Amino acid sequence: MQQVNVGIIGFGTVGAGTVEALLNNRETISSRVGSEIIIKRIADLDLDTDRGISLPAGVLIKDAEAIINDPEIHIVVELIGGLTKAKEFILAAMKKGKHVVTANKALLAECGSEIYRVAVENRVNIGFEASVGGAIPVIHSIKEGLSANNIKTIMGIVNGTSNYILTRMTQDGLPYNDAVAGAVRLGFAEDPPTLDVDGTDAAHKLAILISVAFGVPVPFKSIYREGIDNLTPDDINFAGDFGYRLKLLAIARNREGKIEARVHPAMVPKNHIMANVNEAYNAIYVEGDLAGPSLYYGIGAGRRPTGSAVASDIISMARQINSGAATLMPPLAHARVRRGISIQGIEDLHTPYYFRFSAVDEPGVLSKISGVLGENNISISSVIQKGRGEKGAVPIVMLTHEAKEKDVIKALNEMAGLDILMDRTMMIRVEQG
Amino acid sequence: MQQVNVGIIGFGTVGAGTVEALLNNRETISSRVGSEIIIKRIADLDLDTDRGISLPAGVLIKDAEAIINDPEIHIVVELIGGLTKAKEFILAAMKKGKHVVTANKALLAECGSEIYRVAVENRVNIGFEASVGGAIPVIHSIKEGLSANNIKTIMGIVNGTSNYILTRMTQDGLPYNDAVAGAVRLGFAEDPPTLDVDGTDAAHKLAILISVAFGVPVPFKSIYREGIDNLTPDDINFAGDFGYRLKLLAIARNREGKIEARVHPAMVPKNHIMANVNEAYNAIYVEGDLAGPSLYYGIGAGRRPTGSAVASDIISMARQINSGAATLMPPLAHARVRRGISIQGIEDLHTPYYFRFSAVDEPGVLSKISGVLGENNISISSVIQKGRGEKGAVPIVMLTHEAKEKDVIKALNEMAGLDILMDRTMMIRVEQG
Repeated sequence: MQQVNVGIIGFGTVGAGTVEALLNNRETISSRVGSEIIIKRIADLDLDTDRGISLPAGVLIKDAEAIINDPEIHIVVELIGGLTKAKEFILAAMKKGKHVVTANKALLAECGSEIYRVAVENRVNIGFEASVGGAIPVIHSIKEGLSANNIKTIMGIVNGTSNYILTRMTQDGLPYNDAVAGAVRLGFAEDPPTLDVDGTDAAHKLAILISVAFGVPVPFKSIYREGIDNLTPDDINFAGDFGYRLKLLAIARNREGKIEARVHPAMVPKNHIMANVNEAYNAIYVEGDLAGPSLYYGIGAGRRPTGSAVASDIISMARQINSGAATLMPPLAHARVRRGISIQGIEDLHTPYYFRFSAVDEPGVLSKISGVLGENNISISSVIQKGRGEKGAVPIVMLTHEAKEKDVIKALNEMAGLDILMDRTMMIRVEQG
Repeated sequence: MQQVNVGIIGFGTVGAGTVEALLNNRETISSRVGSEIIIKRIADLDLDTDRGISLPAGVLIKDAEAIINDPEIHIVVELIGGLTKAKEFILAAMKKGKHVVTANKALLAECGSEIYRVAVENRVNIGFEASVGGAIPVIHSIKEGLSANNIKTIMGIVNGTSNYILTRMTQDGLPYNDAVAGAVRLGFAEDPPTLDVDGTDAAHKLAILISVAFGVPVPFKSIYREGIDNLTPDDINFAGDFGYRLKLLAIARNREGKIEARVHPAMVPKNHIMANVNEAYNAIYVEGDLAGPSLYYGIGAGRRPTGSAVASDIISMARQINSGAATLMPPLAHARVRRGISIQGIEDLHTPYYFRFSAVDEPGVLSKISGVLGENNISISSVIQKGRGEKGAVPIVMLTHEAKEKDVIKALNEMAGLDILMDRTMMIRVEQG
């Protein structure tokens, strides 16, 4: 067994967490690996900030190339994020025969095909456990623990910021903007938390989960995205009345070779385990044809949890280097590329829907609404008609049976043309689990 | 890459699930592995029962030795259970240089040390993902996903039968015996379900989890065990009043090198994710020093889920055989044995307690009880004194602050000597999570 040398590019929050994991838990890690993992170099443009970690002189350097070109370094860890430099570094490191670990979900979601291909061409591994769900070993679990299964469904709460905001709206009755402000104040959200609340971050993670589950990278742009910024406390309360909670879900479902791939707020039954994932926690629900439903839950972000995940990939690679393996598990844990998988458009979705109409306060409005729905093959399963709202608008709230999204879009467009609605209709998809 | 040949000993429920997984999902599995996994032989004394699986002639045989001695078989899968024959077969197979997969939790809990030692001596792997939590890849997750962590806490709901019974008692208000009868009727429990409800099965699984988490096999007998058969609907209701739910927990906590290892009914706060694991589901909560809390949830038993876990171990080994690795990950995923770990006796436990006293209906009883508790350094955090019970007994129910188990035992003994209690006192430990 040999000493394994690591070079880390990027000494920000995740970089510091990774370094801390490898240094503070060195004894535990070396007892698991059987040899020492040594941080040979850390590259960062900022050499001055105190990260609270003492390093031997010469370890922290400015030049990432010095890591990529160091023949003694076995594993290059990319933790700078972003699409440009990070990609250059990763591709260059792999071409130099180095294994790569990254937490860069945006890069993998956007350029995964190329990166996985270059890894295979250069017979190196790429580890990206930290790119989804922070400390939660969901990538490992899909690649290894569920490897005998055809994956049927993935449902992830993979953006902690959104989940924290929704938890505050639900538990404290806060309006969206107040919940966001509180999240920013407490450090659970950036200001403004655009990519978190608009679904982009969750869609990046879903792209990675789908790739691992089905063995093929999916075009990130084919994932439907909708954020949480339109949700109101009213919707949360009505959802509660119907027995549901609101979550931002990243959903993939295998519909006979067509994959539903979508990120949007969804209503989940209160007794579903996913409805009980609160605060900034993440959870990924995975259903396999043999295993049935399973859930992986934990802390989705932060210095230590993300460091834990990056370190776990480094440890796997160190074990593999020590094992003398001649061939490696491919990046997506599929030795053969699988065919016949394509992403289904959102308009082909079948699911139950929640609608909240802001109707004019006149007799016959409910009948007109249900008429339009009926004409479009949408049948109502329950209705709540509350007292008069503000400015004369009456909220009419309903759940439908399973309907087609294209019918829903058509019905809502038709209704918007009638003179019975005073505001935009809120539409939320329902996930029965 | 080469064809990997498997021999399976035991064609009962789990055996059939494993065979089904390998046959029905053959295309998925071979695309993940890169070569075919072939079931060369299945040995079972019963050649006649129809398992609903069609096998080529000659695959199903009576003689397990024919599998162990077959030089073409790479992996032997032991699924007969029990301690005697299963152990013989496993040791013999390993001595013949075969990798072994087993779901035999009792055997690993009782004889793990010997089995792991023989595996290392013969440079073979042993996979046992199916021994804990059915389809849930918790063993993989601890070995790989959390490998950078010092494990601080494990809290498992690992016996589906008990969890199903407690769920029925909680949700339907059933007494213990009725809940058991219902579980037997629906196939969720054997008749009688002794090893499930007395904590033995959960303790077997806890022994395995501790071994993997800390890298050393623990003597199974050192694990404290208490079952659910004394719990009453009253206790479940009182727990609810205090904001808790009752679960049979398998708990390990690292207290500076001393490991708490115990299986007993415990009160868990209602908003804790573990309190929301219901029906026959299993979940294992693992806290690492870096990852923080994480949870692994799914189906803990049954033909397909257990088959999924057994097959995942077979796939890992097939991948490894294909990789040409010269050395293997050790059975407990620790290359070096760690020292300094010993099991803490239950009398040294510090935790809050729930007591339900059946007190005589006289003035001053509560004062006498709290007096004895106070003299033993046990302080009360809240008390419920309900109306008169049957036969003149009054239930006095309380939660304490953190106390020492040895003080609790002493106090309860002292009280039993006084003339104020009409029945045995119920004591339940509280887990704050």
